[in-house]
Amino acid sequence: MIVAMQEGAKDDQIQHVVEHLVKLGFAVHRTTGVLQTILAGVGARHDFDIRDLEMLPGVQEVYRVTAPYKLAGRSFRPEGTVIHLPHGVKIGGNEIVVMAGPCSVESRENLFRDAEVVAKAGAKGLRGGAFKPRSSPYSFQGMGEEGLKIMREAGDKFGLLVISEVMEISQIPLMMTYVDILQVGARNMQNFNLLRELGKIRKPILLKRGIAATIEELLLSAEYILSGGNYDVILCERGIRTFETYTRNTMDISAIPILKKLSHLPVLGDPSHGTGRRDLVAPMARASVAAGADGLLMEVHPNPDKAVSDGAQSLFPAQFDELMKQLRIIAPAVGRTIG
Amino acid sequence: MIVAMQEGAKDDQIQHVVEHLVKLGFAVHRTTGVLQTILAGVGARHDFDIRDLEMLPGVQEVYRVTAPYKLAGRSFRPEGTVIHLPHGVKIGGNEIVVMAGPCSVESRENLFRDAEVVAKAGAKGLRGGAFKPRSSPYSFQGMGEEGLKIMREAGDKFGLLVISEVMEISQIPLMMTYVDILQVGARNMQNFNLLRELGKIRKPILLKRGIAATIEELLLSAEYILSGGNYDVILCERGIRTFETYTRNTMDISAIPILKKLSHLPVLGDPSHGTGRRDLVAPMARASVAAGADGLLMEVHPNPDKAVSDGAQSLFPAQFDELMKQLRIIAPAVGRTIG
Amino acid sequence: MIVAMQEGAKDDQIQHVVEHLVKLGFAVHRTTGVLQTILAGVGARHDFDIRDLEMLPGVQEVYRVTAPYKLAGRSFRPEGTVIHLPHGVKIGGNEIVVMAGPCSVESRENLFRDAEVVAKAGAKGLRGGAFKPRSSPYSFQGMGEEGLKIMREAGDKFGLLVISEVMEISQIPLMMTYVDILQVGARNMQNFNLLRELGKIRKPILLKRGIAATIEELLLSAEYILSGGNYDVILCERGIRTFETYTRNTMDISAIPILKKLSHLPVLGDPSHGTGRRDLVAPMARASVAAGADGLLMEVHPNPDKAVSDGAQSLFPAQFDELMKQLRIIAPAVGRTIG
Amino acid sequence: MIVAMQEGAKDDQIQHVVEHLVKLGFAVHRTTGVLQTILAGVGARHDFDIRDLEMLPGVQEVYRVTAPYKLAGRSFRPEGTVIHLPHGVKIGGNEIVVMAGPCSVESRENLFRDAEVVAKAGAKGLRGGAFKPRSSPYSFQGMGEEGLKIMREAGDKFGLLVISEVMEISQIPLMMTYVDILQVGARNMQNFNLLRELGKIRKPILLKRGIAATIEELLLSAEYILSGGNYDVILCERGIRTFETYTRNTMDISAIPILKKLSHLPVLGDPSHGTGRRDLVAPMARASVAAGADGLLMEVHPNPDKAVSDGAQSLFPAQFDELMKQLRIIAPAVGRTIG
Repeated sequence: MIVAMQEGAKDDQIQHVVEHLVKLGFAVHRTTGVLQTILAGVGARHDFDIRDLEMLPGVQEVYRVTAPYKLAGRSFRPEGTVIHLPHGVKIGGNEIVVMAGPCSVESRENLFRDAEVVAKAGAKGLRGGAFKPRSSPYSFQGMGEEGLKIMREAGDKFGLLVISEVMEISQIPLMMTYVDILQVGARNMQNFNLLRELGKIRKPILLKRGIAATIEELLLSAEYILSGGNYDVILCERGIRTFETYTRNTMDISAIPILKKLSHLPVLGDPSHGTGRRDLVAPMARASVAAGADGLLMEVHPNPDKAVSDGAQSLFPAQFDELMKQLRIIAPAVGRTIG
Repeated sequence: MIVAMQEGAKDDQIQHVVEHLVKLGFAVHRTTGVLQTILAGVGARHDFDIRDLEMLPGVQEVYRVTAPYKLAGRSFRPEGTVIHLPHGVKIGGNEIVVMAGPCSVESRENLFRDAEVVAKAGAKGLRGGAFKPRSSPYSFQGMGEEGLKIMREAGDKFGLLVISEVMEISQIPLMMTYVDILQVGARNMQNFNLLRELGKIRKPILLKRGIAATIEELLLSAEYILSGGNYDVILCERGIRTFETYTRNTMDISAIPILKKLSHLPVLGDPSHGTGRRDLVAPMARASVAAGADGLLMEVHPNPDKAVSDGAQSLFPAQFDELMKQLRIIAPAVGRTIG
Repeated sequence: MIVAMQEGAKDDQIQHVVEHLVKLGFAVHRTTGVLQTILAGVGARHDFDIRDLEMLPGVQEVYRVTAPYKLAGRSFRPEGTVIHLPHGVKIGGNEIVVMAGPCSVESRENLFRDAEVVAKAGAKGLRGGAFKPRSSPYSFQGMGEEGLKIMREAGDKFGLLVISEVMEISQIPLMMTYVDILQVGARNMQNFNLLRELGKIRKPILLKRGIAATIEELLLSAEYILSGGNYDVILCERGIRTFETYTRNTMDISAIPILKKLSHLPVLGDPSHGTGRRDLVAPMARASVAAGADGLLMEVHPNPDKAVSDGAQSLFPAQFDELMKQLRIIAPAVGRTIG
Repeated sequence: MIVAMQEGAKDDQIQHVVEHLVKLGFAVHRTTGVLQTILAGVGARHDFDIRDLEMLPGVQEVYRVTAPYKLAGRSFRPEGTVIHLPHGVKIGGNEIVVMAGPCSVESRENLFRDAEVVAKAGAKGLRGGAFKPRSSPYSFQGMGEEGLKIMREAGDKFGLLVISEVMEISQIPLMMTYVDILQVGARNMQNFNLLRELGKIRKPILLKRGIAATIEELLLSAEYILSGGNYDVILCERGIRTFETYTRNTMDISAIPILKKLSHLPVLGDPSHGTGRRDLVAPMARASVAAGADGLLMEVHPNPDKAVSDGAQSLFPAQFDELMKQLRIIAPAVGRTIG
C-alpha cells in the first residue's frame, strides 16, 4: 500500500492519511522528498477499497502493492498445480490435454458419434452443454439432466473425461453426479455466490475469463474458489471484447503466458469461443499451444451445418483430426507432448 | 436478411444459399450485379444465427436487416412508455425522477438519516443494496431481508419509492414484498434465466447495461423481460469498460439519447457507478440530464468516509443538495421539470 | 518512483535495484516488511522507461509516482489558464466559447453564409478545414491556402476567430498568416515533431485527444507544446474508440471534468466528431457544457445534405440556433455565461 | 450498397433515397416486404460517406456490401503476393522470414555485434530505428542518416536486408538510399499524405497496424499505397489497445489468419511491440508463426539492460537463438520452413 501525497499537501492531511492507514492495520513508513511525501503501508490486509484513500484530502495517488490474490498467485505453489483426473489424465503436467465436443448435447446418437471422433483423434475430454439459456426465449434451451446422462455414458464408453457448464447453484448436485469437471462460463466469472459454493465441493472447476475481465480479475475469481478449499481450478482464455468487429471477441493469446507466470494454476485456450468462426479455430488452437497453454477446449460436431447451436464455430471431424496432427508437431517446441 | 455473395460465386453456391434462406422461412429476391449477386430474404423470423449463413461457401457477408428486438423498439410504442408508480411518481414522463441512497443498507439509523436527506432535496426514490456479494469472501455481504424491511419503512415514512437489486431468482418473492422497483445489476444483464422470471412478475424492472454490453444487447435483454409480459422496464447507463484507466468505467452519455431514439423505454443515468469517483458524480449527473435522461440513480451517504461499501463514489448530503439545485436549472433546457 | 520487490526477493537483487535507481538520480528509501521490501526513489527525473526497472530480477511492480507531465498539471497554475484572443474573446474564462462552421471550406459563398449563421446564433469562432487528406485518394482534398484566405475574410467580416487544422510542419507559416488558433487533429496528437514546432510559435493551439489516447497521454502531448514555451494550449475531447459500434466513437464526457481537475488548460468538447451523427450533436453539446466544458467546437453547414464532407454530422442552421438557446439555459447551472 | 428502409417509411421517402442512389451512380433494385422495403444499389462506386444515406428520412440502416478496398483484397491476387528482395529473400513465400535488431541504432559497434548475432541465429533482415521522436523532448532522438549508413554497412557485411522506419515525406529519399524495406509505424498508419508518396516509390513498404485501427482500416491504408502503383506492401500486427493493462497492448494474433484470408499481402507479427515485455516475446513469436504469419519483426539487443530505448522488450542474444530453434520446430506444422 503506497500513498503518494500531492505536492504541497499539508501536514495535517498527511497525518490524517497516516491514521487512516494505521486504522486499516498497516505499519506506515514516511518518505519526505523535495516535492512530495510518500507513505508506504506495510501489512497483510487486502480487504479494503483503495478509492477510500484516494478521496482523502491531499492524496495524489494510491497503489496497492501486493496482489489482491494470494492462493492463486504463483508464489503459493511455485512448481505449478497438476490436477489429477480419472483415466490417468493430468492437467498442468507435461501432456497438453484437449477436450472437445459439441456446443450443446442434441441427441444420444450425435453425441456418441462426436465422442468417438474426438477420442480417436486424441482428445482426453468430452465437452457439451446440457443447459443453454439463450438470448431468445424461443430457442433450444438444452436437454438438461438427460443431456448430462448421455455425456456420462459416452465419456465412460470412450474413456473421456466429461466437462459441462454449471449455471446456477441449484445445478451443482446434478453436476456432481455426472461430470468430471464443472465449467463456469464467462458470464458467471463474477457470480460470487456461485463461486463460493464451488469452493466447497471437491471436483475440478474450469473458470472462463469474462469478456470484459482483466487478468487480475480472473485470478481474483479463482481466489474465491480456492479460498473455499477447492484447489483444483483450471483457468481458460476465451476472448475479450475490443473495438475490432471482424470476430465476436479478440482472443487474448498473451493472457496464456501471463497467467502461467502470475499463477500456478493450469491454463487452457478456447479458440471456438475465442474467435466464433470455424476458419479461425485451427490457427488460434495452434497459437494457444505455441504460447504455452496446458490444454484446449474446442467445439467439434459430426455435422456442424446441422448443429442446433454455434455450428459456425464448430470444426468438422476431419478438420479436428488434421489440427491434432499439427498440434503434435508444435508441442515439442514448448517441451510438451500431446495425446 | 441480406446475403452478399462473393465476386465469382458459382451458381450452385448461390442456389444453396437461396435454399437455406427458404428453409429458414424467408422469401428470397435475387439481384445480379456485374460483380456480385445480392440475396434479400424477406420475412419475419428472427431466431437464427447469422454466422451459419456466413460460413456457407461463396458467401461474402450477411446483414441482419431487421433489429433483433421488436417489443423494445421505438416503433412498438412511438409515444414512449410512461411507468406509473406509487406516490404518483411517473418515470418516462415530463418530470425527471431522481432515486438516491447508500450503496448498501448498513443500519436503520443511517438509512433513515439518508432517506430524510434525499427526500428533502427532491429525490422521489430510495435506493440501497440488501444483498452484496463481494469480491472478497470476508467482506460485508449485506443485511438481507432485514435491510429490505428497513428500506420499506423508510420509504413509507418519507414518501419515497424503494428500489433494490435482485441477484437471483430465489430472491424475487422477497423483493416483491418490499420494493417498488427491482433492479438488475450490470453483471446480471445477460442472466437470461433471471430475466425470464422477471418477465412474469408485475413490478417495474430497472435493467442496467453490462460493462461490456452494446446498446443493442441491452435492448435484447429488455426484450427478454418484455416478451414475458412485463412491459415496465427502465434502462440504465452505468459505464462501459474502455482502455481509459483514470475512471473505473467510461460512462457512455451518448447511450442516453441513442436509447431514447431506438426504444420507447425510459432511460436513467447512474453517475455513481458510471464514474466510481465522488468528484465526477455531479458533472456526469448534470450531463445525463442535459443529454435527455428520464432520471438518475445516485449514491448518497450521510457520512461517505464511514460507508461500509463504495464510500468513494457516494455524495455528501450537501453535495447532493447542491446538485439538485443545478439540475433544476438544466431541466428546462430539455423541456423537463425536476422535483 | 516506487519499486515493490517480490516476496522472497534476495538481498543482492534488492541491492541491484537500489543501484539502478541511484544511477537514475534518485535518493532511495528502503522499507522492509514481513513479506516484501519496498523501495521509494525520491527525485526529479521523469525521463526513463519504467519497464527497465520492471524487468530487473526480483522486481514485482514499479509505480511512477509523479505525473509524467509538469507544465500541463493543475498545480503549475492552480487558478487556471485563460487564453486571450482577438475580438476580446477569452477561452478558459467565465464565458463558454462556441466555434462552429463547416467540415471543409468548399466555396466563398457557402462559407460566408455559414459564418453569418453561426455569428448570429452567438458563436465566437469560425472553424473549417482547408487541407483534407482523405482515406480515398480520389476524394476532395481541400481548398488549401485559398480556403484559409476565405476563412480569414469571413472571420474579419463577421467578427469571428478563425481556427483550422495544421497537418504538417510545412503548413505552419501559412497558418500563422491566416488563423487565430491552430488545431492539431486526433491523428497527430502524438506527432511529436509537429508538436515541438508548435511549441516554438506564439499562437494558441487546440489539441485534440487521439481516439486511442488516454487522458494522461493527451496531457503529455500538451506538455510537449508547453515545454517549447507556447503556453496557450486548449484541450479537446472528441471521442474514443470502444467496442460500441452504434456511433463512430464514444464521446468521453467524463474526460472534461477530469482534465479540468488534472490540468489548468481550457477544455472544449467536439460533439460532431465525438458522435459522427447529427442527431446526437445537440445532446452531447449540452452534456459537454453541463459537465464543465469551457467551450464547444461544432460542425454547422448551410445545407448539410450537400456538404462535400461530413455532412452527416453537420447541424442545419436552425438546429444550431435552437441548440445555442438551450446552452444559454444550462450555462448558469455551472456558473457560466454563453455569448 | 443496401438500404433498409424503416417499417412504415413513406413512398416519397423511398423515392428520395432511390434518387440519391441513382445520383451516386448505382442501379437500384427494390424489394418490398410485408414490413419494410429494401433497396439494393448495384454499381462500382466506393467513394462516398454512407452516413449521408443513413441521415435521409425513413432510412433504417445502410450496409456497404462491397469491401471498401479492391487492390488489397484477396480476390485481386488469389494466389498471394510474394515480395522478392535482395539476397534472394522472399516474403510471402514458403519460408518464414525473421527480421531482428535493436529498437534504435545506438553505435556502430553495438549494431555490428547485434547484426552478427541475429544473422547467425537465422534472421534474414536487420531492423533498427534511425529517427526516434520521443514523448519527451529531452530523450535520445536517434542517430539520423549516420544510423542508416551504419545499418546499410552491417546489412551488407552480414547479408541481411535492412528495414527502418520512415516518419515523414521528407525522409523518403534518404531511406531510398540506405534501406531495403521502408517501415510505416503504427502512428502513421493513417498519415495519408505519407502513404500517397510511398505509393509512388518502388521499394517494399512494411505497414504496421495502428493501435486503434480495425483490420479493415489497415487494408484501406494498404490500398492507398497499392493504388499509387507500389504493390509490395507487407502488413504487420503489433498490438491493439484494449482494457487489459498488464501489457502495453494486446497483440491480436487472430488478425494474422484474418488478414491472410481477406488479403493477398504478406503478414508479419511484431511480438516486441505487441507485448512490450521481453518475457512475452518468445511465446507470442511462436504463436504468430503457429497462426500463419509470413514472418516476424523482433527487437534483439546485445545488452538489453543498456539499450537507450525499449530495452525492456528486447531479447538477449541467447534468448533469440533459443527462440529460432523453437520456431524451426513449429514451422512444419503450418507447412513452412524457417532459415
